Amino acid sequence: MEDKLTLLEVFDNINSHRNYRIVHTVHEFTSVCPKTGHPDFATMEIEYIPEKFCVELKSLKLYLQSFRNDGIFYENVTNRIADDLIGLLQPRYFRLTANFSVRGGLSSDVEVEHIADGFEE
Amino acid sequence: MEDKLTLLEVFDNINSHRNYRIVHTVHEFTSVCPKTGHPDFATMEIEYIPEKFCVELKSLKLYLQSFRNDGIFYENVTNRIADDLIGLLQPRYFRLTANFSVRGGLSSDVEVEHIADGFEE
Amino acid sequence: MEDKLTLLEVFDNINSHRNYRIVHTVHEFTSVCPKTGHPDFATMEIEYIPEKFCVELKSLKLYLQSFRNDGIFYENVTNRIADDLIGLLQPRYFRLTANFSVRGGLSSDVEVEHIADGFEE
Amino acid sequence: MEDKLTLLEVFDNINSHRNYRIVHTVHEFTSVCPKTGHPDFATMEIEYIPEKFCVELKSLKLYLQSFRNDGIFYENVTNRIADDLIGLLQPRYFRLTANFSVRGGLSSDVEVEHIADGFEE
Amino acid sequence: MEDKLTLLEVFDNINSHRNYRIVHTVHEFTSVCPKTGHPDFATMEIEYIPEKFCVELKSLKLYLQSFRNDGIFYENVTNRIADDLIGLLQPRYFRLTANFSVRGGLSSDVEVEHIADGFEE
Amino acid sequence: MEDKLTLLEVFDNINSHRNYRIVHTVHEFTSVCPKTGHPDFATMEIEYIPEKFCVELKSLKLYLQSFRNDGIFYENVTNRIADDLIGLLQPRYFRLTANFSVRGGLSSDVEVEHIADGFEE
Amino acid sequence: MEDKLTLLEVFDNINSHRNYRIVHTVHEFTSVCPKTGHPDFATMEIEYIPEKFCVELKSLKLYLQSFRNDGIFYENVTNRIADDLIGLLQPRYFRLTANFSVRGGLSSDVEVEHIADGFEE
Amino acid sequence: MEDKLTLLEVFDNINSHRNYRIVHTVHEFTSVCPKTGHPDFATMEIEYIPEKFCVELKSLKLYLQSFRNDGIFYENVTNRIADDLIGLLQPRYFRLTANFSVRGGLSSDVEVEHIADGFEE
Amino acid sequence: MEDKLTLLEVFDNINSHRNYRIVHTVHEFTSVCPKTGHPDFATMEIEYIPEKFCVELKSLKLYLQSFRNDGIFYENVTNRIADDLIGLLQPRYFRLTANFSVRGGLSSDVEVEHIADGFEE
Amino acid sequence: MEDKLTLLEVFDNINSHRNYRIVHTVHEFTSVCPKTGHPDFATMEIEYIPEKFCVELKSLKLYLQSFRNDGIFYENVTNRIADDLIGLLQPRYFRLTANFSVRGGLSSDVEVEHIADGFEE
Repeated sequence: MEDKLTLLEVFDNINSHRNYRIVHTVHEFTSVCPKTGHPDFATMEIEYIPEKFCVELKSLKLYLQSFRNDGIFYENVTNRIADDLIGLLQPRYFRLTANFSVRGGLSSDVEVEHIADGFEE
Repeated sequence: MEDKLTLLEVFDNINSHRNYRIVHTVHEFTSVCPKTGHPDFATMEIEYIPEKFCVELKSLKLYLQSFRNDGIFYENVTNRIADDLIGLLQPRYFRLTANFSVRGGLSSDVEVEHIADGFEE
Repeated sequence: MEDKLTLLEVFDNINSHRNYRIVHTVHEFTSVCPKTGHPDFATMEIEYIPEKFCVELKSLKLYLQSFRNDGIFYENVTNRIADDLIGLLQPRYFRLTANFSVRGGLSSDVEVEHIADGFEE
Repeated sequence: MEDKLTLLEVFDNINSHRNYRIVHTVHEFTSVCPKTGHPDFATMEIEYIPEKFCVELKSLKLYLQSFRNDGIFYENVTNRIADDLIGLLQPRYFRLTANFSVRGGLSSDVEVEHIADGFEE
Repeated sequence: MEDKLTLLEVFDNINSHRNYRIVHTVHEFTSVCPKTGHPDFATMEIEYIPEKFCVELKSLKLYLQSFRNDGIFYENVTNRIADDLIGLLQPRYFRLTANFSVRGGLSSDVEVEHIADGFEE
Repeated sequence: MEDKLTLLEVFDNINSHRNYRIVHTVHEFTSVCPKTGHPDFATMEIEYIPEKFCVELKSLKLYLQSFRNDGIFYENVTNRIADDLIGLLQPRYFRLTANFSVRGGLSSDVEVEHIADGFEE
Repeated sequence: MEDKLTLLEVFDNINSHRNYRIVHTVHEFTSVCPKTGHPDFATMEIEYIPEKFCVELKSLKLYLQSFRNDGIFYENVTNRIADDLIGLLQPRYFRLTANFSVRGGLSSDVEVEHIADGFEE
Repeated sequence: MEDKLTLLEVFDNINSHRNYRIVHTVHEFTSVCPKTGHPDFATMEIEYIPEKFCVELKSLKLYLQSFRNDGIFYENVTNRIADDLIGLLQPRYFRLTANFSVRGGLSSDVEVEHIADGFEE
Repeated sequence: MEDKLTLLEVFDNINSHRNYRIVHTVHEFTSVCPKTGHPDFATMEIEYIPEKFCVELKSLKLYLQSFRNDGIFYENVTNRIADDLIGLLQPRYFRLTANFSVRGGLSSDVEVEHIADGFEE
Repeated sequence: MEDKLTLLEVFDNINSHRNYRIVHTVHEFTSVCPKTGHPDFATMEIEYIPEKFCVELKSLKLYLQSFRNDGIFYENVTNRIADDLIGLLQPRYFRLTANFSVRGGLSSDVEVEHIADGFEE
């Protein structure tokens, strides 16, 4: 799983004198349930206030597509993606919300939030 | 009613270094009105920040299905489910919102919130 | 299953000189999947042009509630209800549409239509 | 009930050389259930192609308000209103659709259509 | 108007160790405009945190139906219902929101909120 | 009222070898009720298959704005506009649908259709 | 423009022992653009907590209709109406939100808020 | 690709004395674009009137999941699935509608319809 | 304008034994108004039943983007695109619907339909 | 790019004694992706509390149209527009939210907020 990180690219944030908010919404995330082997589907919303770097869109898409055939739980895939992006971007603020589709009459959201030490909006 | 609890299963929260939010929405809860014997229908939204444990999805579904033929009031079934899940998960934060369908031109929501002692987000 | 029929009541159609259309929509039908034992949920739309009789609403509700704990397939429960109501009401026109909720990313509708011999609108 | 009819007023259709369609939608019809004494609520849609007369709007409103405290079944109130308006307006085409609100998880529509003898659109 | 209060019934709140929220939404409230005599229509949303008592649903419905033929202004009927329910339930928190339907291109909401002395959520 | 017609401009239909459909929807039509003096509001949908001419958009807007302070009934203003446009454009097919906003809990639509002699789609 | 104020009427607030909120939404406001002469359309939402007076609904409607043929900018008409109502009602709290319809692919809102000196909710 | 067919199972249609309609909607179909290698997403609606057989739901789901990593064009995957199901079920009527998600500001639907020889509804 | 056609590419329809329907919806078409120089925006829906050829998606996108800075009327751009695609694809059935955004409170649709000689569905 | 600024015009804020909020929503912003050359589409929402100046609407439209053929990244075009408007208007409060349309299953928002030194609402 290490090499997923190499898919992600960043570019310089040339507006770092200001706190501003970027939200990328990925409508078609899919991975595989490790228990049943059936596919899971989710919408992923990534919101952050950049510090030095912004994530490049195409690379973000490829990174998220790389989970397509991985068997991984809702709670863990959400935390995993949050860890990767927080580590790479070192953002002032970060929030990832994953909305998983209905399974057996039950839908699930997982939300991870991260605020850089000392950051206040 | 004691044995409903045995239906619920948990798994370890491997991301407990972080506060993150899980929301499970059960679209098809049904129980029975103890006064009229007619079925009641509700959507149940369970939101929590886990401490040591997460609730396993399939077991949550079976637990909620076990109320199908129980006669119990809106206010009481909501508090009962909240008590069971809070007792089992010992979450940092917990909220249960039950949205009961229209009866006689009148719909009802019941919402229970619980914050662990000393927890601050 | 015979005695479900005794739950249904009719009243006289006092406007039979005219073709007019009645649609009853039951938002909370539930039965049980005979394979998995899990509950199924559906919205049932019953449309008909009455001849001699109209179905009484409260009795229709009780009749449909009686399937609550029956194990029966989508296709069969829809045809069964259609057979019962067509037999009882002998309507000029009849259509039953059942919309079953999402299961495993898949939702299903079943629609039965019946036109009395010689009836033309 | 006879005197409800005196509430309705008409005005001359000055465009009778042409078939054109008028639809009045009354969003707040209410009457009383003759069995339970509880109020019923409906939206009434009146569609017609006028011949000699159009119904005056304010009088239509007062006529429909006059059912407010009458105990009368869905099927019958719809046919009654249709009979009154068809008798008064002698329209080329007429359709009344009544959408009654949810009662016990069940909503109902009643639709009456009338085409004048020899009328073809 | 005194005897409307006798229509309301309460039951004991057996979960008073906890603050929890109950919301009843009545979709079909109707009264009469004291100026024009025309009917008014509203949706009433009653939200409260119970102390000793909860309001019984059927009695709430009958109480609200009792305004059907009363002539009373928007602002006053909303405050009147709030006064009655606050007096009866002595809730920790209470809010009533009345949404009146469009009249002359103009719709109106009236909202009353009440917090028991010393109550803090 | 004659001079309203001078506001309308046409341009040549350079695609007359083909039947094609044009729909202009005017979201903000307003005139005045001749009885009460209060303003009426409507959405006007004009659909036609052109023969020799198309109506110029800006002129159509000015023509419709010219009714702003005219007192005229729903049924008559709709037929009047239809007459003007049919006379000017001589279209193969024409339909005007006017949707008037809610007044006293009652909304109204008026629809006029015209097919040129001998035209078949 | 002075005499618009004479159109507004008030009535006594008999519930002034309590802070409660009134919202009137006018769906069909129209005035004229002073630059182009074309009509503007807006929805106006007036929210206030009354002190001594409430605004009478019919007079509010007539007052707002009086702008129908006035040429006035978005920003100014909104402030003008706010000034008039604040001056007349002396409310504890006041907010006016005007939502102007799309012009040239661009829609606009203007929002004025006013809090009486010393008022705290 | 041959062996995908072995995933599909049927069961006997016990209501074949009647024409009735079954619609299965699969909300989460995904395959791969053969040109770019990026995933495609679609909703598939399968509507049919059964003759001798109905398709078993779970097997239908597994069959459709088997396309997850296949590179295949919109037009071809839709025709392929239609061919498989028509061959297997020999239905009286069949329609497959595939709604592919937005790519580059462009979304696509493909619809295949099949009517058995001599079938008339 | 001739060379726009060279942007379009086709591929062979390998399912021509069957009539099936393809719908491409382009959500972000933009051209320029030849009178005012302001940009126009539309959604274009292209529906066809292919004969020998299907239009390649990426080339369709580039072809439609090529109108970005062209000054051309609604009616004419729609007929132009229809002519180009009909000429290229020679489809059994073709329909183009263009929905142009609101301008001055007025939105417009233009719809062109074409049926190949002798084609009957 | 300097001369875009000359497109913007302001007018005096004659209501500067009060903090009030203006929101302009531009539904049809388009620029070009500097990497792929394909057009990007966005909705731009500009919210501000004016100090001395308001932005004139028509000039705002022309200013935003001037980006039509510029190649510029999401993050940068949003910050650029914010810088231009903040510099020109010197508003008490400013927020720009840009909602970019779906590309490759991924949509993006960028939000810039600015509060004048010492301003407190």
